[in-house]
Amino acid sequence: MTTRDENTFIATWTEPFGAVWRAIAGAPTGQTPLAASGGSPKSDALADLPKTPFPFAADAVACQRVNGKLHVSFPLGAGEDIYGMGLTYRSLNQLGQAKCLRMGHYSGQEDGRTHAPMPFYISSAGYGVLLNTASRVHTYVGTTHPREAHPPLQDRVHPDWRPIQPGRTVDFYLDAPGVEILVLGGPQMLDVVRRYNLLCGGGCLPPKWGLGFWHRANMNWGEKECLELVDRYREHRLPLSVLGLEPGWHSNCYPTTHDWRTSLFPEPRRFVAALEERGVKVNLWQNPFLHPDCKLGQSLAPYSGSHTGSWGGLVPDLTLPETRRLMQEHFIKEHVAIGVSGYKHDEVDDESWLPPFFATYPSGTSPEEYYSLLGLYMQRLGFEMFRAANRRTYGLVRGSNLGASYLPYALYNDCYDHREYITGLCSSSFGGLLWCPEARTSSQAEEWLRRIQAVCFSPLAMINAWASGEMPWTFPEVAGAVREVISLRQRLIPYLYSAFAEYAFRGIPPVRAMMLEPGFSVSLDVTAGKLHGTDNPYSRPEARDVADQFMFGPSILVAPLFAGQAERRVLLPAGRWFDFYTGAEVFGPWHTIRSNLGPIPLFVKDGGVIPMLAEGDDLQPLTRWRNLEVRHYGEAEGVFSLYDDDGETFAYEQGAWTKLELAVRRNSAGRLHGCVPAPQSHSVNPAPVCTWRLTFQSTATRQGQVGMKSSTAIDRRP
Amino acid sequence: MTTRDENTFIATWTEPFGAVWRAIAGAPTGQTPLAASGGSPKSDALADLPKTPFPFAADAVACQRVNGKLHVSFPLGAGEDIYGMGLTYRSLNQLGQAKCLRMGHYSGQEDGRTHAPMPFYISSAGYGVLLNTASRVHTYVGTTHPREAHPPLQDRVHPDWRPIQPGRTVDFYLDAPGVEILVLGGPQMLDVVRRYNLLCGGGCLPPKWGLGFWHRANMNWGEKECLELVDRYREHRLPLSVLGLEPGWHSNCYPTTHDWRTSLFPEPRRFVAALEERGVKVNLWQNPFLHPDCKLGQSLAPYSGSHTGSWGGLVPDLTLPETRRLMQEHFIKEHVAIGVSGYKHDEVDDESWLPPFFATYPSGTSPEEYYSLLGLYMQRLGFEMFRAANRRTYGLVRGSNLGASYLPYALYNDCYDHREYITGLCSSSFGGLLWCPEARTSSQAEEWLRRIQAVCFSPLAMINAWASGEMPWTFPEVAGAVREVISLRQRLIPYLYSAFAEYAFRGIPPVRAMMLEPGFSVSLDVTAGKLHGTDNPYSRPEARDVADQFMFGPSILVAPLFAGQAERRVLLPAGRWFDFYTGAEVFGPWHTIRSNLGPIPLFVKDGGVIPMLAEGDDLQPLTRWRNLEVRHYGEAEGVFSLYDDDGETFAYEQGAWTKLELAVRRNSAGRLHGCVPAPQSHSVNPAPVCTWRLTFQSTATRQGQVGMKSSTAIDRRP
Repeated sequence: MTTRDENTFIATWTEPFGAVWRAIAGAPTGQTPLAASGGSPKSDALADLPKTPFPFAADAVACQRVNGKLHVSFPLGAGEDIYGMGLTYRSLNQLGQAKCLRMGHYSGQEDGRTHAPMPFYISSAGYGVLLNTASRVHTYVGTTHPREAHPPLQDRVHPDWRPIQPGRTVDFYLDAPGVEILVLGGPQMLDVVRRYNLLCGGGCLPPKWGLGFWHRANMNWGEKECLELVDRYREHRLPLSVLGLEPGWHSNCYPTTHDWRTSLFPEPRRFVAALEERGVKVNLWQNPFLHPDCKLGQSLAPYSGSHTGSWGGLVPDLTLPETRRLMQEHFIKEHVAIGVSGYKHDEVDDESWLPPFFATYPSGTSPEEYYSLLGLYMQRLGFEMFRAANRRTYGLVRGSNLGASYLPYALYNDCYDHREYITGLCSSSFGGLLWCPEARTSSQAEEWLRRIQAVCFSPLAMINAWASGEMPWTFPEVAGAVREVISLRQRLIPYLYSAFAEYAFRGIPPVRAMMLEPGFSVSLDVTAGKLHGTDNPYSRPEARDVADQFMFGPSILVAPLFAGQAERRVLLPAGRWFDFYTGAEVFGPWHTIRSNLGPIPLFVKDGGVIPMLAEGDDLQPLTRWRNLEVRHYGEAEGVFSLYDDDGETFAYEQGAWTKLELAVRRNSAGRLHGCVPAPQSHSVNPAPVCTWRLTFQSTATRQGQVGMKSSTAIDRRP
Repeated sequence: MTTRDENTFIATWTEPFGAVWRAIAGAPTGQTPLAASGGSPKSDALADLPKTPFPFAADAVACQRVNGKLHVSFPLGAGEDIYGMGLTYRSLNQLGQAKCLRMGHYSGQEDGRTHAPMPFYISSAGYGVLLNTASRVHTYVGTTHPREAHPPLQDRVHPDWRPIQPGRTVDFYLDAPGVEILVLGGPQMLDVVRRYNLLCGGGCLPPKWGLGFWHRANMNWGEKECLELVDRYREHRLPLSVLGLEPGWHSNCYPTTHDWRTSLFPEPRRFVAALEERGVKVNLWQNPFLHPDCKLGQSLAPYSGSHTGSWGGLVPDLTLPETRRLMQEHFIKEHVAIGVSGYKHDEVDDESWLPPFFATYPSGTSPEEYYSLLGLYMQRLGFEMFRAANRRTYGLVRGSNLGASYLPYALYNDCYDHREYITGLCSSSFGGLLWCPEARTSSQAEEWLRRIQAVCFSPLAMINAWASGEMPWTFPEVAGAVREVISLRQRLIPYLYSAFAEYAFRGIPPVRAMMLEPGFSVSLDVTAGKLHGTDNPYSRPEARDVADQFMFGPSILVAPLFAGQAERRVLLPAGRWFDFYTGAEVFGPWHTIRSNLGPIPLFVKDGGVIPMLAEGDDLQPLTRWRNLEVRHYGEAEGVFSLYDDDGETFAYEQGAWTKLELAVRRNSAGRLHGCVPAPQSHSVNPAPVCTWRLTFQSTATRQGQVGMKSSTAIDRRP
């Protein structure tokens, strides 16, 4: 029977942090993603954010039990755009979309089944709303109209008929006895995102090596082939930071053992050390499906579920502390202690390799709830081991949820649609997620180049050749261009690492959707859907959206090219923008890029200051910053906060870090000078459209104490 | 908390009909599809089916409450293939698939969201299982393994690793307090399907005109343009049986009024009569979203839900008898009484145009339950009006469910993938559904031809030009071939109508998946999944499946060609097969077809007898059969049961029909003779590979009394 209890049963709103409001609807039970993720709010940084008033009228949030389930409704203003709702691949603007958010492998239909199903949205009006739940949630973003409040009706046969008339609410509907609700203030969308990330513990700070280049080896390779691979990268003068081992390293795989296959790796410790000597870390693929006869499987049998995961493995119940302890014990002994750097936590996302929903787990957690949290538990389990060893880790994970910002993992999946991967890269920034738009293989050279260019401007730059055996130089006609972009990625690590420090300390995502950029205005109107004869005859309109370009660090705008594209357009935010490679000014708002197997289009905002490893240093170990090239673009004054620390441990949490303000300022005569806090200062050429270089030698070693020495002066480029 | 009540709470199995077993698990509440569809079992025909024993051990069916929901489990034998589970588009064999069956628009991901979500499967071992529920159902077909019962484990790095090891159960999991379960006996799969169809009331018998050619007109056309269209069909010497009007006929559309737009149709009665004079019926598009100001909207306002459907319409609660009565009253007065022949019930399938799941309805039915039944209610509402007027109807519907066999509607959707449409055509036969693989438009001539060829061998042959304005002759280079196949469809109506009579009286689907054909053996092994570098790196295997060819009536096998295909293979069932056009024998099991814009490949089984309208009669009105051409293929004796009745009314239910056995038999000298019950007999040429023609004049008028007069004798074709 229908019941609609008109009494809203939200307790009063509290404000645990400034502009973070919390309320409980009903009586929540079970586990939540924010608790499972285990992060601690960064109170100090939260306090630095601007204060804003509660974004709604006091009584505008409605919560009712309808048809036996929970309906929570928030106001939606006219003209508001809505972003977020977890990882998405087809569109960023969620206005007009109805979904059922649930954990699952995305495979081409954006109906809410995703690797990060997060009922958390951010409004273009500058606030956010989050439901902290592990349940499936039906979401309706401006798609519903109570019959008494419908906008004026139309007649479709009229030429000005427009199919979308957004409703005035964003609605959630879930089968739970209650839910915790958070409302986050802005005033800007970026402030909402920062607030969220800081609530989750701040963004992660990967080790420096994590930002270098990764290669996942063929799953059947052993020690010999892996060492040869490292040699071949060297021969090709390509940097390599991390080598990933795929399932074959397990003594049995599918189901897995988490013990080494000695036929391939007779002495794992020696193997890991040999790679370490060559400056390469080892990352291990794993999944939670344990061979029942292996050591780990035997010890975890009492803590595993009633049914096997894909291909026969026991599925441990990670909600139990003892399960996590036993797993960590094994992982520490067999992997962490011998120098393994981290994991790729695979297959935590999908019903098809996880047991059915009627399976049972020793803790009593239902599979629907457990699977939505499993990715969080795996990330946390991995992170905690390395944290205890005072070594930072960086890895990959296939499923995530609310609260993951502080966990050093990039998401990935199998859809392998290059455009969708870029949209995923953008959408990840709305929810404290990192995304790896994997390069696996390609049928043609151009696509291979475009994919590698894209991964080089993502949080985790990797070739995943586990099945393909591809190499960066697989396609000779683009091997030079591939080398160039990998080298550029490596040289940009000081810039990117500083951007990650902003993520960790201040919650600013290092790779961001354009909507989070000040001055960016999606000047597109909602496109009226066209009457289409076949696929889309219902005239669905497209929402305002820009999902194929993004910000990389504070001042670089990336507009990746896709295979077959001889030209594309990029929408530039307000202000002046300059080509990264030539320093030439480009003019917006829409700028057309033409390219023929050229480099990935990059644009720098006026006054952008970009520190890079010096030319030729891309094959050197990643230590403290020493020889840097610092570029300045355009005519405006600019500043870059160059962050440094030991790059490997958690000492930075105790203050063992440095920040150096690299500034380009105008002197009293109006001429631009590069400045550092030390007295060095360099006059630079004031030509209006150009790129400057300032080169320093950094000798920073201790917190707050920095020596910077100029080694060369000015290098004007055309 | 997990609970697993080990007491199976299935009441004892009863056997209401032979080899139809029924049990109740738990305490079902709410509505069910079998009740909502409203059909009455055809007891006599059911009794004619062979008896079989209960297919499982008495205690092998398990039913438990797990994690608060209902888990029902059935045994799955080694080597069994499983078909059904509602309408599917990508594969027929469901082995290895886990889904969440729910009503919704299919858009490319086969995860259980479909236009006919039916928890009903048929095993290759010759039995069927059905859960009569309106709830969403998670289904697991051989995908789960209790940990204590897993098959031998494997190691993926071995070359003989195979990713699928089917489980030993088919499992259902649903959020309901109980459910009615039916188990259906065989012994053949076709017997299971027949049993199901007869339980649902027998298959539908469309009027003869329903099997002719349909054209859905541009949505902005009025009386004038429609009449011109009829003239143009005549000019092109093309038969036209039904003209479909799209949304524009409503005085307002989106939301709709179900009143005529007088600017386009000033006198609807005159318009319908003018078409009737030309031998063309009118079919009306409609959806359940009512303009609140129209007459119907006003009268149904008290019986409508709390939220509007897409584009602002009220959504009437069709579970209430008064709602149906008021709707029928309006439809009868405005449409049925002036001669309209039927409806296309659109948009009953999808959350995106239906109100949200937190909407409420006056009856208290929850939206999740209601939307899964809405398509059934619309079909039944339409059918009942015409039945009361003693006129048969035939139409289209966008959503259906269990129990629909007797309802004269073909399903359709928007995916517009030609291959998926053919798979849909095959899958529909497992569940008492009919499918229309619409032709809407094409970017090129070849595809246009291939699509029209496919619709001409489907239950409803139609061009849906509502948005495209396409005509059969749009592409001049294939206009001749298009005309040929439309003409052939028309000439095959006696054959197809008789096949529908078999559907109505004996439950045999007129268009059938190959697996329902005796002697058809899917000689394919399960394909081991290949390691793929990108999209499918998890080595998913493909199941044994043949989803791109089907049976049309008793003896024609259709192997449609797809655009770009110069050749394809067809898998022939055991026995001898002959080319429909040439009579030449083809050899199996795999036969390769080569074609260049040729006709749709058709094959006839040895001894196949095919009655057709005489050449030139394809433009004549569809009356009682008069001049028929009867073909016989191959060398075996054969028989065809030629059904006839008035073609329009329900008088056939009172016995006003005839059946004539058209037989080709060998006489004592071993020569083939065409025979009819009347004394006429015709010797035919016994050449081994050829086609014969026997031509009769039928004057059948009353049940069981048939006059057949030979008009021509034998026509041997090369």
